[in-house]
Amino acid sequence: MKIAVLGTGTVGRTLAGALSGLGHIVVLGTRDPQATFARSGPGSMGKPPFSEWHAGNQHIPLETFADAAAAGDLVVNATEGAKTLAALSSAGSANLAGKVLMDVSNALDFSQGMPPVLNPVNTESLGERIQQSFQDARVVKTLNTMNAGLMVDPGRLAGGDHSVFVSGDDAEAKKAVSELLQALGHRDIIDLGDITTARGAEMMLPVWLRLYGVLGTLDFNFKIVR
Amino acid sequence: MKIAVLGTGTVGRTLAGALSGLGHIVVLGTRDPQATFARSGPGSMGKPPFSEWHAGNQHIPLETFADAAAAGDLVVNATEGAKTLAALSSAGSANLAGKVLMDVSNALDFSQGMPPVLNPVNTESLGERIQQSFQDARVVKTLNTMNAGLMVDPGRLAGGDHSVFVSGDDAEAKKAVSELLQALGHRDIIDLGDITTARGAEMMLPVWLRLYGVLGTLDFNFKIVR
Repeated sequence: MKIAVLGTGTVGRTLAGALSGLGHIVVLGTRDPQATFARSGPGSMGKPPFSEWHAGNQHIPLETFADAAAAGDLVVNATEGAKTLAALSSAGSANLAGKVLMDVSNALDFSQGMPPVLNPVNTESLGERIQQSFQDARVVKTLNTMNAGLMVDPGRLAGGDHSVFVSGDDAEAKKAVSELLQALGHRDIIDLGDITTARGAEMMLPVWLRLYGVLGTLDFNFKIVR
Repeated sequence: MKIAVLGTGTVGRTLAGALSGLGHIVVLGTRDPQATFARSGPGSMGKPPFSEWHAGNQHIPLETFADAAAAGDLVVNATEGAKTLAALSSAGSANLAGKVLMDVSNALDFSQGMPPVLNPVNTESLGERIQQSFQDARVVKTLNTMNAGLMVDPGRLAGGDHSVFVSGDDAEAKKAVSELLQALGHRDIIDLGDITTARGAEMMLPVWLRLYGVLGTLDFNFKIVR
């Protein structure tokens, strides 16, 4: 499958590498490829510059949001939540129409300091906003409740004995995403329901952020024990 | 220890019974004891009338919020979230001053239909509101992320292999609550930090409600796998 991964941060890089490793043809999307390559020095959380990562992943081209989205049969939104709608507008609704749009973003608002808060919250979600803004795309919210390493290698923690959620209005889109998740090693995929259920998944971030603080590791996840 | 449990719903009844079973002297609090006894017919979710439950638990007296709170060394808030601040005002801040106030409530707002939404959300929490309103009480938010049966008998699910959170500003209060939780069988007690971390714990309710819908059972819980 041709997969466009929008966003060149840790999550975008990690998903792009892993999906490519599964044999998919992956293209990364960013606002301005030249600017992304030109950026030097570590990014947020000490992340190495994109060019350094890309030196070891030259088989994955970096294109504009629009070119990447146009090339993908399935599009992954791995942009920062605060910039997601702008990024997807830049990708263009025509390039998303009819496609599965796998949304892994979190609507974190850092403007009030750490830890960030969620915005929108509760009676809305970023997943819903995306679906509302791109009505012809088949949005599936998933993977937003764990770190990038676990997204693509759940087995590295407790042999994969933890859970992942999917939310979306389109059953076939959820099936396609669930198959990708299974291929990555996810064993407990819970379909929460329609895209409004993304509220619940997105609202797990505040406790996730606090757990990150107290556990001192990113490598933890929620398991729904039943 | 003398424990006041405020609220006569499923959670209040279950906690009162279990804490009494641990050997504590328990008193239940309600707005109007006569009215609570007089109510007949099933309550929400088919819950039997209070008088029926009480017939088998006559060693647990039912008093006003104020009398119950006055009698308790530790006070449990098990009232409905939407009515919590009114209930605690009725209990009286003097009856809460200096005491551990174990808050297990959820700020669910049913006014917009099912599933209910959380209110307040994100930049606030009911736990914080309680601490703010009763500054001399030592509020600990806990247990709000699971059903009443698991609160008092975690071992009945997966041998107790799942997690519970505590949030609060007072380390000794959290220690007292954690000891109660351990006595009930909780094995993985995670101290999230100060009372603002109740936001994260409270915001797990939207996904909890959806999981309840899709799993078809109340008997599930979050385990933080790490």
